[in-house]
Amino acid sequence: MQYDPENIFAKILRAEIPNEKLYEDDHTYVFMDIMPRADGHCLVIPKTPARNMLDASPEQLAACIATVQKMGHAVMKAFDAEGVTIQQFNEAAGGQEVFHLHYHVLPRREGLPMRPPGTMADFDVLKDQADKIRAALA
Amino acid sequence: MQYDPENIFAKILRAEIPNEKLYEDDHTYVFMDIMPRADGHCLVIPKTPARNMLDASPEQLAACIATVQKMGHAVMKAFDAEGVTIQQFNEAAGGQEVFHLHYHVLPRREGLPMRPPGTMADFDVLKDQADKIRAALA
Repeated sequence: MQYDPENIFAKILRAEIPNEKLYEDDHTYVFMDIMPRADGHCLVIPKTPARNMLDASPEQLAACIATVQKMGHAVMKAFDAEGVTIQQFNEAAGGQEVFHLHYHVLPRREGLPMRPPGTMADFDVLKDQADKIRAALA
Repeated sequence: MQYDPENIFAKILRAEIPNEKLYEDDHTYVFMDIMPRADGHCLVIPKTPARNMLDASPEQLAACIATVQKMGHAVMKAFDAEGVTIQQFNEAAGGQEVFHLHYHVLPRREGLPMRPPGTMADFDVLKDQADKIRAALA
């Protein structure tokens, strides 16, 4: 399967569309999911093209998973969470909707199920949540 | 949170309890999930202790995610799958039930949802599925 450079995460990396950025380093970029399934739900992506895990390089995978760990700690601190769920979907049958490799990082609390997918966030709420995560990272 | 060396995956690594092994290398071990949520559902774990992602070393994370990729390709080939879903749970609130770091690798097909958790596999069926994955890896 081909990488499509017009996918929305590629556009985010090129700063062609707005996003609530949380973190970046040489190899990865992190921003808020605009359809969050939990407060603080964010996405970790590589800065270089990969359709998903199946065509990613060992370097892309290692860089992403290190940033996933970093963000796991940050969202737990920011939301006083008791756990973190990581999801990563490959191809449409595997649950993937945007075809640039991404890891979902979801802070979790006991007894609070993830919300159903597909509901757009209030952008002021999203910015407040992002501020908390950025503070936790600082 | 402490690592408990009596967790069942530690016992699997010490060969104290049976399991349907699929693959191992210097740093990781892979075996069939006995409560599979899809045909071919397998688990990738580090050979060294880590409670979950939150206390894992960069080396453990990089080794696991490389093996997750390898197993993703293998289960897709073995089950003629169209996608792969990766899940990784941290702490009970995050969905974790066994407290040794593990990645779920689930081959997926369009229109076929994951089965609900908690149903024990038929062990003959599990062995047949494991044979297919081992053949795909060979």
